[in-house]
Amino acid sequence: MSEERIVYVNGNYVPESEATVSVFDRGFLFADAVYEVTAVVGGKLIDFDGHVTRLKRSVAELSMPAEVDEAKLRGIHEELVSRNDIDEGLVYLQLTRGAADRDFLYPDTSTTPTLVLFTQKKAVVENPAAERGMAVVSLPDLRWDRRDIKTVQLLYPSMAKMEAKAQGADDAWLVEDGMVTEATSANAYIVTGDGTIVTRGLSNAILHGITRRAVLALAEEAGLKVEERGFTIDEAKAAREAFVTSASAFVMPVVSIDGAKIGDGSVGPLARRLRGIYLEALAA
Amino acid sequence: MSEERIVYVNGNYVPESEATVSVFDRGFLFADAVYEVTAVVGGKLIDFDGHVTRLKRSVAELSMPAEVDEAKLRGIHEELVSRNDIDEGLVYLQLTRGAADRDFLYPDTSTTPTLVLFTQKKAVVENPAAERGMAVVSLPDLRWDRRDIKTVQLLYPSMAKMEAKAQGADDAWLVEDGMVTEATSANAYIVTGDGTIVTRGLSNAILHGITRRAVLALAEEAGLKVEERGFTIDEAKAAREAFVTSASAFVMPVVSIDGAKIGDGSVGPLARRLRGIYLEALAA
Repeated sequence: MSEERIVYVNGNYVPESEATVSVFDRGFLFADAVYEVTAVVGGKLIDFDGHVTRLKRSVAELSMPAEVDEAKLRGIHEELVSRNDIDEGLVYLQLTRGAADRDFLYPDTSTTPTLVLFTQKKAVVENPAAERGMAVVSLPDLRWDRRDIKTVQLLYPSMAKMEAKAQGADDAWLVEDGMVTEATSANAYIVTGDGTIVTRGLSNAILHGITRRAVLALAEEAGLKVEERGFTIDEAKAAREAFVTSASAFVMPVVSIDGAKIGDGSVGPLARRLRGIYLEALAA
Repeated sequence: MSEERIVYVNGNYVPESEATVSVFDRGFLFADAVYEVTAVVGGKLIDFDGHVTRLKRSVAELSMPAEVDEAKLRGIHEELVSRNDIDEGLVYLQLTRGAADRDFLYPDTSTTPTLVLFTQKKAVVENPAAERGMAVVSLPDLRWDRRDIKTVQLLYPSMAKMEAKAQGADDAWLVEDGMVTEATSANAYIVTGDGTIVTRGLSNAILHGITRRAVLALAEEAGLKVEERGFTIDEAKAAREAFVTSASAFVMPVVSIDGAKIGDGSVGPLARRLRGIYLEALAA
């Protein structure tokens, strides 16, 4: 048992084999739950404030009567990082509307929310995919229309990642009304012929990525041109470079789309530079 | 503790306070789970075969490596009905891809699926709403695009039911591209001026209701005209009658939409007759 992770469930730190929730939890019955994933590098939480701010927004959008106490959540994150000896990896947090007899109507607001956190060890900095670059395929975006709320309704992203794998690729870029929304669990970018970084603007159609915001700010600081607008798969195939960003992948180059090489099919210089700038900022 | 329900979880019959699943269950983390709700009348399961057939379809559509054994499932249903002394009510069944460390990619196919069942007592036959009729409001349909698969991604139906309640109504009819898809957890119907029953045809846009199929068959047996096509909220407001069907509400009249009375605003004769025919068929 000594190798079991320690997981946080509603105030208790327990071995993962004992980490359970009620079958009546609304996270289990209705996907009535939101989550955040915070990267850990050198034992340090990355952009924790940003994740807490987004969590507060998700909770507010769903009218969850849950308190989001930044100091308390930071304490739990740090305790789990320490107890599980996480140097590099992730902390996953999920907050649900709590357990109540099954009813589409929300339960009484006095219902205790469920809070679960666990860690995963993962090489996030020295990720070999960053050197190799990712192959992606395009798939229709069949998700619900409030992708700005970070809910656990993740079945379609999961299905799409399986379909990408079946097609020999690493991930999928999702397309709606002819335009790319995002990757299955990352924001999507291209670099046009004149070196402009293009990514879809914020709306209900995409997740408001914490890493997206950080990377766009760093890009502008570095004097790079950024344009927030939709783009098609055809434009992406003709782009000079492509990449994605997420809290756990940071900046990750994309080297092919639907089998077509992007540029010369190797990791692009701008994606490499942005990953470098982002990692430098983390270390600062 | 003697008043606790007995719940089925992965082979065990346990008091509801002890009915738990792992926090790593994919039903909890990814909404990677399907469900069925079977009505119970006079201690008897209603249309159990139909629910099992649909469950098999959901499992197949999601490539879940779960065995759906009709006899075994029927045994669990009957055991729960007996142990919980259910004369009228529901049996809820949820099947997930099982527990595994968090990854969008499906876990190894040897992962044990999670099977949970519980009962709810409910007056399904003598439901006062059937006499009063329901008020509904129209809301945009923001759900994912595979509503034919009965997954637990039910957050939007839940949100829509709360919004309907906030507007003083009983439920919402969801609208996509100008046409009604269905209610939040029921199929939607209107009766036109010439007495034709109109309901949306089967596609990925709506759930393939077990009660929908039974009611349409009974309607045709009774010599009623049925048309499967989309309709708008305006057409519904101008209709002679409106109603919904679901496994737990059977046939339930709708008497107003967005505050506008349907017909004279009381329960329509055809809805009343169909409910009667359906209840007679159950008793047969």
